[in-house]
Amino acid sequence: MSLIVQKFGGTSVGSIERIEQVAEKVARFQGEGHALVVVVSAMSGETNRLIALAHEIQEQPLPREMDVLVSTGEQVTTALLSMALNRRGVKAKSYNGSQVRILTDDAHTKARIKEIDDQRMHADLQAGFVLVVAGFQGVDEHGNITTLGRGGSDTTAVALAAALKADECQIYTDVDGVYTTDPRMVDGARRLSQITFEEMLEMASMGSKVLQIRAVEFAGKYNVPLRVLHSFEEGPGTLITLEDKSAMETPTIAGIAFNRDEAKLTILGVPDMPGVAAKILGPIGSANIEVDVIVQNIAEDGTTDFTFTVSRSELPGAEEILREVARTLNAQEVRSDNRIAKVSVVGVGMRSHAGVASQMFAALAEVGINIQMITTSEIKISVIIEEKFLELAVRSLHSSFDLDGEPENESAV
Amino acid sequence: MSLIVQKFGGTSVGSIERIEQVAEKVARFQGEGHALVVVVSAMSGETNRLIALAHEIQEQPLPREMDVLVSTGEQVTTALLSMALNRRGVKAKSYNGSQVRILTDDAHTKARIKEIDDQRMHADLQAGFVLVVAGFQGVDEHGNITTLGRGGSDTTAVALAAALKADECQIYTDVDGVYTTDPRMVDGARRLSQITFEEMLEMASMGSKVLQIRAVEFAGKYNVPLRVLHSFEEGPGTLITLEDKSAMETPTIAGIAFNRDEAKLTILGVPDMPGVAAKILGPIGSANIEVDVIVQNIAEDGTTDFTFTVSRSELPGAEEILREVARTLNAQEVRSDNRIAKVSVVGVGMRSHAGVASQMFAALAEVGINIQMITTSEIKISVIIEEKFLELAVRSLHSSFDLDGEPENESAV
Repeated sequence: MSLIVQKFGGTSVGSIERIEQVAEKVARFQGEGHALVVVVSAMSGETNRLIALAHEIQEQPLPREMDVLVSTGEQVTTALLSMALNRRGVKAKSYNGSQVRILTDDAHTKARIKEIDDQRMHADLQAGFVLVVAGFQGVDEHGNITTLGRGGSDTTAVALAAALKADECQIYTDVDGVYTTDPRMVDGARRLSQITFEEMLEMASMGSKVLQIRAVEFAGKYNVPLRVLHSFEEGPGTLITLEDKSAMETPTIAGIAFNRDEAKLTILGVPDMPGVAAKILGPIGSANIEVDVIVQNIAEDGTTDFTFTVSRSELPGAEEILREVARTLNAQEVRSDNRIAKVSVVGVGMRSHAGVASQMFAALAEVGINIQMITTSEIKISVIIEEKFLELAVRSLHSSFDLDGEPENESAV
Repeated sequence: MSLIVQKFGGTSVGSIERIEQVAEKVARFQGEGHALVVVVSAMSGETNRLIALAHEIQEQPLPREMDVLVSTGEQVTTALLSMALNRRGVKAKSYNGSQVRILTDDAHTKARIKEIDDQRMHADLQAGFVLVVAGFQGVDEHGNITTLGRGGSDTTAVALAAALKADECQIYTDVDGVYTTDPRMVDGARRLSQITFEEMLEMASMGSKVLQIRAVEFAGKYNVPLRVLHSFEEGPGTLITLEDKSAMETPTIAGIAFNRDEAKLTILGVPDMPGVAAKILGPIGSANIEVDVIVQNIAEDGTTDFTFTVSRSELPGAEEILREVARTLNAQEVRSDNRIAKVSVVGVGMRSHAGVASQMFAALAEVGINIQMITTSEIKISVIIEEKFLELAVRSLHSSFDLDGEPENESAV
């Protein structure tokens, strides 16, 4: 018998019919002898309906009251799913954030979990109840309702799994797992049976459509085995764990990630002296513009070139700031380009495999793609290329690293 | 400066526009220097929407989960009203039942309030906040969400007023006060400026459309001055208090109440011996049928006749039970009649005024109405008459007791 935390998102509980389907699935797991904690989101559309009500009143609604308002969405689902389980003869009990109690800081609408009280839940699990917990919400030390921000239900599930020392945390979604790359781009894209937390984080550009990055970080930190599964189709999904237990057989590379939403800014002829990078990026950060790739090459003639990427919508704002910075620094020129994309090769295996970078660059060269920028991390190599070559690059790399193939078959818990 | 508890029901907060109107009113009171606690119901339609969702799943939904579900309705309103107040520069804070904390027993869907923690509320009032509290809900000693049953928001308001020792509890409704009788029936029906708790309770048949009886009982018990007012029209409403402070000037009679929903059952020729009333009403009570008027006349020839009324929808069930009882008791006959109505004259003044009964009977006789049954309490005399004479009876009594006239003018707090 295992203790499993399962999370069902808004679309999975988007109607009474779907809630019944989820209840059916949960009842089956319970019938197999598992102890279950089920985390649910608000029925799809409900959170937006509530937010729209608030916006009729205030453009910037009070954060405290926003949390009071939207947290009702998940509470409704917990009650309905508990009823649906009850109707199937499964003892179930709903919990909202303050009942668990999921203690957070007081940063309304984007609170962080500080502590989870597992006493009451353990007692109810012992008594044979399926616990149905409202995702996305908690309570601060003064008893004010808080929310973890959108998508926070994944985080709730992982946090509960960590607190309860669950055997597995299953995230049910509308995809059947994590793929080597986007199946819409590469026909041979393959569902991974396993991936490590680190790889999952580096695969962010694809992974974020499947799982909240924050939940993956949390799971990694507390070593909670995380499994991504399809809500209404059978299948083993993808297991995300600390170490790749099947490392011997798996390829060095987990997958090919990519991101179209990149724009490049270069400031040329900057004096090469300490603190210049901070002078360039400081004003960008102050304007709340997130920077992705940063590259600075070695200096020549006492000046250097500094390049970074931002998301496309931020380009005009970032460029304006950078032109101001260029004047201050007496830099030569500012150039921008939003017809670029990022392609990354991700895999824990590359730590011990120096050849990955050269294999990557060779594969791109073979199809005539010029590399504009390169950055590397321990388990990821990213290149910036012209956007029009993106599909070609991804397909070439997917094939070059032997990722094409059939999904593996293995079973979930 | 007074501390006022105000309660706005579902129609008063039924749309964002109405919530804005309520915020306007509350802001005005605050501007006058009052400390305010505002109790709100769910937006009209919301509770029914939630109940309908539950019924799609279970015919008899789990009471615990029913409470979790429907309590979200009031919580939504508290957040929206707090935002609307904030937009007007009024500091406001929402509270749900568990945040107040309104401790109840664990009778889900019909819980009774045991205790209210006034500490946190006093602190927030001191800090200048308007407190917006979710009506209708509480929490049991294990932290489970409970509800007080429909209309329980009135009770919440009164209970808060009692706990906080408020100067007045104002119930905003869709009528501008309590009337001497139904204005749709009698043109001269007059709004009362004041009425006692006891009179209000005895006026139940009209009063229940204005105020939950349970809230009136509660207010009487804790001596909370209660005022019924119109949500969106100006006016002093009706003040409900322990003693009629204007007793000298007010007439003996507060009003004429009536009820059409009555059906009469008589069991004839019952042996006149101890315990026979219990034998008759016991099975009726066990079947959860509520009995209104009960009359037993003196015995003749060792047998007696026993008559009582139930609501019309209960007549078939009650009659079947009574026929069974009649067989057991060897009674002579069972008769039923659902073309009856009840008319009552209510007023604390009649305690010291023996002539009210005779005046009432004379007024009815004068217009040729036959009285079928009579019951009396300290401050009420009720008669059962043929339904077709109801309007005539009410109008005659209203006029006979000098109730016709213009509404009095006096001001609220």
